[in-house]
This record gives sequence, C-alpha cells and structure tokens, in this order.
Amino acid sequence: VIERDQPLRRRGRRRGDLTIATIAQLAGVSPPTVSKVLNGRSGVGATTRQRVEALLRDHGYRRPAPGGASPCLEVVFYAMLSSIAVEILRGVEEVASSRDLTVGFTDVYRRVTTGQPWLEPLLVRRPAGIIAVFSGVTDEHREVLASSGIPLVAVDPAGDMYPTPSVGCANWSGALAATRHLIDLGHRRIGVLTGPVKDLSARARLDGFRAALDTAGIPFEQRLMRNGRFIFEQGRDLGSELLRLPDPPTAVVCGDDLQALGVYEAARRAALRIPDDLSVVGFDDIEQCAWCGPPMTTIRQPFAAMGAAAARLVLTLAAGHQTTQTRVELGTTLIVRDSTAPPKPQ
Amino acid sequence: VIERDQPLRRRGRRRGDLTIATIAQLAGVSPPTVSKVLNGRSGVGATTRQRVEALLRDHGYRRPAPGGASPCLEVVFYAMLSSIAVEILRGVEEVASSRDLTVGFTDVYRRVTTGQPWLEPLLVRRPAGIIAVFSGVTDEHREVLASSGIPLVAVDPAGDMYPTPSVGCANWSGALAATRHLIDLGHRRIGVLTGPVKDLSARARLDGFRAALDTAGIPFEQRLMRNGRFIFEQGRDLGSELLRLPDPPTAVVCGDDLQALGVYEAARRAALRIPDDLSVVGFDDIEQCAWCGPPMTTIRQPFAAMGAAAARLVLTLAAGHQTTQTRVELGTTLIVRDSTAPPKPQ
Repeated sequence: VIERDQPLRRRGRRRGDLTIATIAQLAGVSPPTVSKVLNGRSGVGATTRQRVEALLRDHGYRRPAPGGASPCLEVVFYAMLSSIAVEILRGVEEVASSRDLTVGFTDVYRRVTTGQPWLEPLLVRRPAGIIAVFSGVTDEHREVLASSGIPLVAVDPAGDMYPTPSVGCANWSGALAATRHLIDLGHRRIGVLTGPVKDLSARARLDGFRAALDTAGIPFEQRLMRNGRFIFEQGRDLGSELLRLPDPPTAVVCGDDLQALGVYEAARRAALRIPDDLSVVGFDDIEQCAWCGPPMTTIRQPFAAMGAAAARLVLTLAAGHQTTQTRVELGTTLIVRDSTAPPKPQ
Repeated sequence: VIERDQPLRRRGRRRGDLTIATIAQLAGVSPPTVSKVLNGRSGVGATTRQRVEALLRDHGYRRPAPGGASPCLEVVFYAMLSSIAVEILRGVEEVASSRDLTVGFTDVYRRVTTGQPWLEPLLVRRPAGIIAVFSGVTDEHREVLASSGIPLVAVDPAGDMYPTPSVGCANWSGALAATRHLIDLGHRRIGVLTGPVKDLSARARLDGFRAALDTAGIPFEQRLMRNGRFIFEQGRDLGSELLRLPDPPTAVVCGDDLQALGVYEAARRAALRIPDDLSVVGFDDIEQCAWCGPPMTTIRQPFAAMGAAAARLVLTLAAGHQTTQTRVELGTTLIVRDSTAPPKPQ
C-alpha cells in the first residue's frame, strides 16, 4: 500500500519529490482519493480516476515494477473442483517458476457469497498478474485492474469471459468426438446431460453432440436431453429420469465428469451395469475418472497446458507487450477407458 | 536477491554502510560466499555459514522483514492428491488473507524426481514462511532455512516430520473408530490394508485397528492384512487378494480413501455388492467419497483446519515468538455413509 506521506517514484532523473498531496491538489480531489487510485481500490468515479491517472502519468510517476514489489502470479478460483484447480496451478507454476515467481492460490467463494470484495485484497499485494478461473469478473473489476496496471487473464471454464483475454478449450470438438465414439460402437439412442445453457461451454458441447448425431443421420430426440448444473447430484437425478423412460437410452453423453459419476450412481441404483447395460462418457478427465468402477471414458481438457498458456499470456501483458492473440483455445482428447461398449443386442 | 554492491540494512542508527565486501573481508571469504549466505543458498559449508552469520549479527545486519519483501506463505506439495491439497490451501488462505499474505502453491515432485534443488528457488522469493506437505525435508534443508531466517512448518501426512514443527491428525484414534464401527455392525472377520509401514501415520492406523479388535476380544489374523502404498491400484490388487481367500473378510478397513476406492473396484470385478456383500471404510474423506457408488464411510482428516493451524504456527515463528507447542494433532471423525452395513447372515 502506498501511504499518503510517501514520495512517489518517478521515471528518469526528475528533480524533487512527487507527493500524493501535490497530485490531489492538481486534480482537485482529496489525498485519500489519490491513494485509492494508486492502490487500485474501488470507490472512485471513472472520470476522477482518469484525471488522477493522467496527472500521475504527466508527472512521470512510475508504478512499482511487477515482480519487484511482489513477485507473484495470483490464481483466483471460485469453489473449483480440486483436481482441476491443482492441474491449472501446476501449469501456471511451470511457467512462473522459471521466472522466480510465486504462484498465489486464492478461492473467492466465501468472499463472493458473503458480498465482500475479492479484488481489492489481491491488489494490495500487487501481483505481477492475475489469472481468474471463474466468470465473476465484471466491467468494474476490469476498470480497477486497468488503472492498477495489473493484467488479468481468464482460464475459462464457462466460455464467457470476454472481453478479458482468456484461455479455453475446444468444447464443441470434444463433445463431437465423445458422441462419435458412441455412434461408432453402434449406439443410436443416446441421452445427453448438459450444463447450464447460459454457459457458452455447455452450449458448445451440446452443439457438438447434435452435430455428431446429425452427420450420422440420427435424429435428435428432445426427450433424451436434460439440462442441469455441473454437479454429481444433478447427474444422479437427471440420469435416473433418463433410465426410467419407457425406451431408455443405451448410452449417455454427460456435460462433465461429475455428472457422469452421478449417472454411475443412477445406474447402480437401477441395478444396471456399466458398460454392459449402459455406456457413459464424461468431460474433463478429472483424476476420479481413473478410480471409479469402471474407469471412465471421457474427454480430456488439458488443464495444465491451459494454466501454462494463461501464465504466458498474463506475463506478456505484464511486460507491457501488445498481443493480438487474446483468446487461446487448446485441443481436447477422447480418452477411452471401460465405461463404453457396444449396446446389448435388442 | 541481495546484490553484491548493495548496502545492507542495519538495526538501529549505526553510522556508515555495511557492505557485503566488508563482511567478506572480515570473514576471510569471497563476497559471493557472503551473498549465498544472505540469500539462503546452498553451497556454503556449515562452519563458514556460521562465521558469516555471526559477523552479520555482530554488525547489526537486519534481515528484510518477512512480509515486507514478499508477503507470501509458500505451501510446498509433493504430488499430493488434489482434493487434499486444495483443502489445505483453503485453510492456509483463511489465516493468510486476514494478514494480506499471498498463499503460494509449489509442487516439487518434478524437481525432486529429477534431482534438482527445490528449496533454493523458494528462498530467492523470500517468503514469510514455508509450509511443507511432504516428508522430504532433510537436515541440510533445515540448516539453510534456519540461516535464512525463514520458518518452516510441516503438515504431516506421514507422521514423521520431526524435528520440524508440524501439524498432524489423530491417526490412531481414527482407525480405532473405523474398526469399532464395523465391530458394532457385527463384523468379526475384518480385513485391513495399510500404508507403507515406514510411515508413522500408517503404523498408527494399524495400531488403532489392532487396538479395536483387541478390546473387543477379536483375535488379529495376519492372513487378513496386506501392506501397500496409498494408491488406488494397490487397494484394487490387495483387495482382490483378500476377496479370493477361502474364508474372505466381510469388511475391510483401508489405509486411505484411494485404497478403499481400489477395494470398490476389486469388489466390482468379483461381482460383490457394497455394502451387501462387503463393507468398506476409508481414511481421509477426500471429495471422491461422496461421489462413489455407494458413497463411502470414512474417517475425516480436517485438512483445512490443519492448513490453518500450520499457517498460524509458521506466522508465530516468523514473528520471532517462541512457542513451546511445536507439534499439533487435530482430531479425526467417523463419517458414516453407505459403504458399511451388518454382515450377511451366514
């Protein structure tokens, strides 16, 4: 935190100290307002902020160099599934450690759900950059970040982080590959569980599912689709609904692995065996996929590579380089394990 | 990093600059050697290090205050299971965020397995403290840390981190509670999978298991015990061995949840249903326990509370306070879900 009576650092060899009081007087605001702008805190109007920033620039104020004050890349999660969070952290670390940067872990779930600000505490620590793995970044956050000179990049689970520079994965192609795998095995009555339709990632996966059916000449059946959130309980309950249909699906494509684990539980309760009676495909390839009975066929998201790409992008921005590539999508891969097999002969 | 030509900070109001060159001359070593000591790097003999440290002390050298240079608590993992790692990080964060400290994530698995040093890169970033969640801390590491003035606390999965101050859990009592639960349900032929016997935590759990049998008057049967590592595949393979016995166990107490998930897979392959044909108890309560079929009865380790306790302990040490309590053990809790039931009538 920059204190009121502290001389500010200036570029080059200008004479005399630049103080917050001077800037405040020139801007016609109070010193605490200048402090707020300097420290990237909220509670300052956009016009005032711009005027103060302009004066600071004009008087040669130099922001503390990222990496000097706090050599840290902060990664911000919102109640993210652990195995995804750790993979992303490992990817960020791979890039950060080669530059002697700490990888900071923050989970803002409690702050956000209790209505507390989450960005300000991070800014006080002046990280070299912030990587947000959630979709709660607002225009106001972006403005505060821009005026703090701290770059932000999103790792994009929901596909909706624009206009923040972001790293995502090929959701559409992944769902296409998952569905084609089932079609190739001989399935024709394929159920689908989707994530929240407002998430572009969920929409892209559903579109990929439909494209696979369409190109195979299989009509899409509304009755075999259910929308839910990306949680175990929804997979279990919506999966049970599908299995109770008069003419139930022989396979289910799930919005993510947690939903797929829920479908496993629905099958267990219905005394159906996977893959003999029902094939299941997940999405993500979380570590649980290798430890469930049977090991799960799924679509792998390259979380570590996504974290590394986000770290490289945020460091490029932190160094003040322009980059035309502010959206990166990495490929997804079909991982075939034991939860998929040809359907039983009817 | 403290550079060679940089005047060193001194306590109080002494006159004149203290330089590395001065200390080097007085110690009869080269300036780079003094730099190494100052920056906590290795490659300096113990005697030299002590002589340099003593001179620095005598000349009133003041180490940069933790929290000033890099306001960070570094948490160091070694290929830790994600859901445990994230819980520990959340606990550390709870304490750290109230003091504006970043929580740093580092996984040293790759460095350790490729023979690279893992401590030095951390020291360069001058964290306020280090929390190690693995058992690879050696005497040399401890010496380097001591001379750097950076405190270390271990979160102790293996129970063997002495003499580092550490936070662990009640392994013995947890295994006792798990076994008593099965005995109360009516089980008498109870199998046990253990972790590596060199880990004190695995030994404590086995002892708790035996104590429960003993106090219930049930003889311990060597043929129902298997030793393995804390991984899924060992649970699966050793579990299969137990299930193939002429007189197989009706229940299995596992060394951890991953082993228990492996026993689920062994049961699935043997076409046995849990809990109807076999009861299973895990240890840890990782998030997977709620998502497996059926949800798992297990012993909960309070990982978040352990992280928070470690953070409080390391900050106490960082503040230069003495503490007589350098070993904390937090309680474990039996969580009853659906993987345990009375044995089938014979």
